Parts: sequence; structure tokens; C-alpha cells
Amino acid sequence: MHFLLLGLKPLPRPNGFTTFDLKKRVEVRLENTNICFAPEAFDRLAELMRKAGLGRVFVLTDENTKAHCWPHFQKRLPDDVPCRHLHVPSGESHKSPEALLSLWRELHLHAGDRSSLFINLGGGVISDLGGFTAATYMRGISFVNFPTTLLAMVDASLGSKTALNLDGIKNLVGAFASPLLVGIDPKFLFTLSRDELLSGLAEMFKHGLIADRSHFEALQELPFDNPVPGLELILQSLRIKHKIVAQDPREAGPRKLLNFGHTVGHALEAHSHESGAALRHGYAVGLGMRVELALSVACTGLPKNEARSLDQNLARWYPWPSHDWDLRRLQDLMSRDKKNRAGQWLFTLISSPGHAVYNVPVPPESVRHALEKCFAGEVD
Amino acid sequence: MHFLLLGLKPLPRPNGFTTFDLKKRVEVRLENTNICFAPEAFDRLAELMRKAGLGRVFVLTDENTKAHCWPHFQKRLPDDVPCRHLHVPSGESHKSPEALLSLWRELHLHAGDRSSLFINLGGGVISDLGGFTAATYMRGISFVNFPTTLLAMVDASLGSKTALNLDGIKNLVGAFASPLLVGIDPKFLFTLSRDELLSGLAEMFKHGLIADRSHFEALQELPFDNPVPGLELILQSLRIKHKIVAQDPREAGPRKLLNFGHTVGHALEAHSHESGAALRHGYAVGLGMRVELALSVACTGLPKNEARSLDQNLARWYPWPSHDWDLRRLQDLMSRDKKNRAGQWLFTLISSPGHAVYNVPVPPESVRHALEKCFAGEVD
Repeated sequence: MHFLLLGLKPLPRPNGFTTFDLKKRVEVRLENTNICFAPEAFDRLAELMRKAGLGRVFVLTDENTKAHCWPHFQKRLPDDVPCRHLHVPSGESHKSPEALLSLWRELHLHAGDRSSLFINLGGGVISDLGGFTAATYMRGISFVNFPTTLLAMVDASLGSKTALNLDGIKNLVGAFASPLLVGIDPKFLFTLSRDELLSGLAEMFKHGLIADRSHFEALQELPFDNPVPGLELILQSLRIKHKIVAQDPREAGPRKLLNFGHTVGHALEAHSHESGAALRHGYAVGLGMRVELALSVACTGLPKNEARSLDQNLARWYPWPSHDWDLRRLQDLMSRDKKNRAGQWLFTLISSPGHAVYNVPVPPESVRHALEKCFAGEVD
Repeated sequence: MHFLLLGLKPLPRPNGFTTFDLKKRVEVRLENTNICFAPEAFDRLAELMRKAGLGRVFVLTDENTKAHCWPHFQKRLPDDVPCRHLHVPSGESHKSPEALLSLWRELHLHAGDRSSLFINLGGGVISDLGGFTAATYMRGISFVNFPTTLLAMVDASLGSKTALNLDGIKNLVGAFASPLLVGIDPKFLFTLSRDELLSGLAEMFKHGLIADRSHFEALQELPFDNPVPGLELILQSLRIKHKIVAQDPREAGPRKLLNFGHTVGHALEAHSHESGAALRHGYAVGLGMRVELALSVACTGLPKNEARSLDQNLARWYPWPSHDWDLRRLQDLMSRDKKNRAGQWLFTLISSPGHAVYNVPVPPESVRHALEKCFAGEVD
């Protein structure tokens, strides 16, 4: 396990929105993964495609990325390597065993072999599903991620987690597998709606809350209507995530820090899908962080005034949606969280802004209490 | 990667059948896996069960092992740790995505969490299916293998390969995942039919052919009607397999040596399943080795007289079954072999008895020629 920054000098602390300097050569190496920004990312991809050349190259898209990202992406691919298009419908519900089975079959049908290269062009659903498909086809073929959403750029495409949902339980099955390359093309950010940007920003706010208060504060400066973060902000989130993952790739300990907001967030997300008014992952994490800030006051000594101030910042981006929340169902969903051990609920909570603690046992009553307060619009 | 022999002194070369000395303490450590013989194996298992205790312990069996092995196994388990029984029907056809999905669901239903322990009690189907289930549930929970067939003891339960079949293609999907413990209880050998013993012996013969001629010769001394190998012979096969796997756990190179007999063998096995007269895996490998010995004469310079003598030894145990083989279908099946690269057929072949070479390109015509000769009962 190593963590190298190649050509990546410590950057001055960004002040809110900064423009992209695409001439900057940015490449980060984490374990077996290169993280690389466009245009270099496409040079690296071409190398990998040519290496796999005698085998087969597959590209996975969904409806959205096929329409909005594939035309731009295709132009950047080398002409001399054949590339087969695979396709799934858009949406979290297709991160399913059925989609996995269908992709395994397509790989086999088109003579995918161990030297094949699998390219995930899309958001977290695509990198989770495509990554798991690649990680298990013939016990593992090479894959690369080209994230097309902010959420995937700062979170899903990095850190070697791949997953499927099962019976409405998010990421219940999956594997740890590293993409050879994460290629980040900021142009894709300009294809995103404000809601999609907010979904990715939630993970960036989380990076600030658990590890770097000033990152959280810098993100607050983004324009409210079109919060496209600059390259430096994206890089700072990548640095924080990498530093944590590099310490603990398999989530035996410190990596759980990244789960802040997610125990409640996953339950809210799953509940919202059941009741037909689906919340985006990041929005649910935004709300989950608000609930878990309240829990942090009760369980890890986060000062009340800090919690209030942080919550006000989050509330601006993530107001509680009017929704018929079923507390009992939320608790049932949380009781199935992967971080739990032997029936005990374990949370990652904040001790002070920029510092987090993992494996904090939290009694179900405290969670109910915090949820009720949040539903009622009260901050502890 | 390390390869330690704990309490395992070099043993004198066995002469054919030897009795078990169950007082011997035998434990081998390979990567994260302990290989341990009964009765110590049950002490190790009890420790692991108690460690997982606050979570859940699951035991997977099939019909055969439920009837013939579970009663003996259950008596050896500690009383103080609850243990939930999971069950699949017997047979290769249940090493399927459907069985995987059903096991994922059962784990979830019974609140399996990341601290759970998954015990595979059975042959290769159980350790492949159960291992893959455990490797992917919540991105990987701990599992142990208690092989109940000779084939699983000397092959399937070791080396971290887990797998499923897909649409009749053997092991098309899977993952590399190490069991914490492989527990070998030789008592299970006495529950096996001659056919089941022959299936396991094929892999032991293979170990001899690729790495240790005298092991191959010692195995020839086993009684024809009831060829139960002694502890020393099993250990020698384990040593050979471990030595090769330890060099190359992910099968990037030398581990392919273990595929001798398997390119043709898998095709024969799949073909036999399609035509309703299913061959056991090991029997198919036995036949596959006979075809690949003929190929070794043509492609890797195995002397004809050696090939003839080795084939006569194998023919005694693995005569060609009368079967309506479809050459074209066999070739089609072989063209899908995982070892192939970019359309080229790559075989592991023998250069001299006890020495093998991997990644040998073999033209399809040579394979057809060798198969035709074998079908006709001629040895090259």
C-alpha cells in the first residue's frame, strides 16, 4: 500500500469556486490505481486499451451517459482498438443481480477473456455494477472508471469498493477491487443538474466534517444555484479520501470514518425508494449527516453551538423534504447496516469539526430521538 | 505471501497405501489459510466460532453431506456457539447464480454480518459456491472449508479459488478468496465410493505428472478396488499444490501448471453434462490428461515411450467411456477456456514426467488430432 502524489504539489487553500486549469498535469497513485485528470487520462486509457488490444475492450454506459457523455468520450478513444458497447438502463434499481448476470453473459458472448479491459463510463451505479462484474468475471479482469458525476468523481470511483443492491438493501453484496485507472474529465461536470451536483457535494462536505474544517468552509462559498466545485476542491476531497483509504483499504478500522452520515443516510435513501419518492444518494447522506450531527452532540461530545452552526450550513443545501417517514421502518433498515456488529449499532460520529470517531455504539432510542427532532425541524 | 510448514517435517517417501496416524499433529500455513487435520482442525474451528460468536455462524451442506457428514461433524462442534444450517441440493448444476442469490438472501434474512463465519462442509461444489457467497456477502466475510471428498481435500478447498458455473461454462465467474482454515478429517474418505475416490485421485496423479514423478508412481500402488490414499500421499499432494500456489496466488503465471489436463478435461466434463451422461470432474481431468499427454508429445517434446507408459497407467483408472463425443462442440467449449489469450489456445503440457510447461500455444488441429486418436484408442 502506498500513496504517491506524482506532479501534484501542495496547492494553496482554495477560496470557494476556482476555474479549471486543464494544463495542470495531475496524477495520483493509490495502491494499483492511477487517478488522472483529462487530457492525460485519455492517454493512459489508450495505453491500457492497446495493451488489452489483442483481447477485447468493453465500455459500460447507462441511458444518461450514453446520451450525454459517450459522444464526447468516444472522440477521445484511439481509433486502432476495437471497443464493444455494453448498456444498462439508468438508475439505482439496475445495480442488481439481474444486471450482473446479464453483463457476465454479454462478456462471455463476446469472448471477453482475462486480458480484456472493462471501462465504466458513468456515475456510482455504473462503477459499482461494472466494477463488480469485472472483479468477478473469470475471477477478475482489469477495469477503469471514468466517473461522469461529481459524486462518482469524489467518492464512488475511488477506494476499490464495488457493490450490488439486493432486495432494496444498498451494497449488500460486492467485492474490493481496484480499477487500474480513474480518469477524471471535468467537462462532464457541466452536463449535471444542480441536484446532481448537490448529491456529490454531500460527500465533499463529509470530507470536510471528518477531516478538514476549512475544506467544509470553502465549499460553503460555492454559488448556490450552480455549485460546480473547482479542481482544487475536488483534489482536496480526493486527498482526504485517499489518505483514509490508504490506511485501511478493507475497512477494518479507520476507513469507517468515511461512513459519517451514511448509517442514517442509507436508511433514508432505501426508505425513500420504497415509498416512491426516491432521494439521491448524496441528498440522503446530506440529511443523514444532519441527524448524525445531533447524535454527535449526545454521543461524542460535539459542542451544541458547533453542531447548530454546521447543521445550518448543511440545511441550506439539504432542507428536510416533506415525506411520510416511517420511523419503525427506518430503524429496521438501520439495524441491517454493514457496520453493525452482533446486533449493536455502530456509528461514525463527529467529535469536533474536522475530527471524527468510528465504531461508536449508539442505542436505538438515541437514533429515534434524533430523527424525531430532525423531522420536527429542531436542532439539538 | 509466505509458505510455512508448522510441525510438518519432511516425511519419508510413502510406498503406496499407508495407514493414517491421526496422532500426528499436522498444520500447514499458506497465506491467510491454516490447513489442519482432525482432531486439531476442530479445535481451530471452535476458536473461530467463538470469535465470531457474537455474530452468527453458518454451515453450508448439500444433500449428501447433510446425510453422511453432518452427523459426525455436528458432534465435534462446540455446544456454546449457535450455528445456522444452510442447504443446497447436491450437484454441479447448483453451483449457479440462482444458488448464490438464494444464499445471499438467507445470510441477510438471518442477520449475517461482517463478523459472521461461514463453514463449507462438502466437496468442491460447496467450497466453490459457499466460498464465493462468503467472499461477496458484505464484500467478504470469513469462511472455512471442511472438505468431505478426496477431490476437495487435495484440490478444491485450497488455493483461494471460488467460482460459479454460468450457462454450462464451468467456473466462468468467481473470486480469489482465502478460507481462514481448511480442516481435513480423513474419516470422511470412508464415506466415498470408488468413483468419488477416482475423481480426487486424478488431481493427485496430476500433481505427480507436473511436479513429482515418484508421487505419480507411488499412487499407482493404491489398491484398485478401494483406492483410499494415506495421509502421506495426501500431504504430498498438498505440498505440491501449495508450493505452486504460493508462487503465484492469482494465476498470472506458474499457477497455470495446475491446469494440466483441465483444458480438455473441462470441455469433456461440460460436454458430458450437456449430453446427459455426466462425467465427474476428476474423471474428466483423468481423460483430459490422457489427451494432453498426446499433445505433449507433439508440442513440448515428451518422449513417446514416456507418454505411452504414463497413459497406460492412467488408462487403468480412467478408461475412455463409450459416449457420443461431438468434436466440434468440444472444440467450441475449449475455445472459451479462461487460459486462452486473444483467440490463441494456451495449454499446460508435460515436457518430461514430473515437469510441466504453461502457456504453450496449441493449434486447434493438433487438439482435434489428439482427441480423434484417443477416441480411437490409439496412443501417439
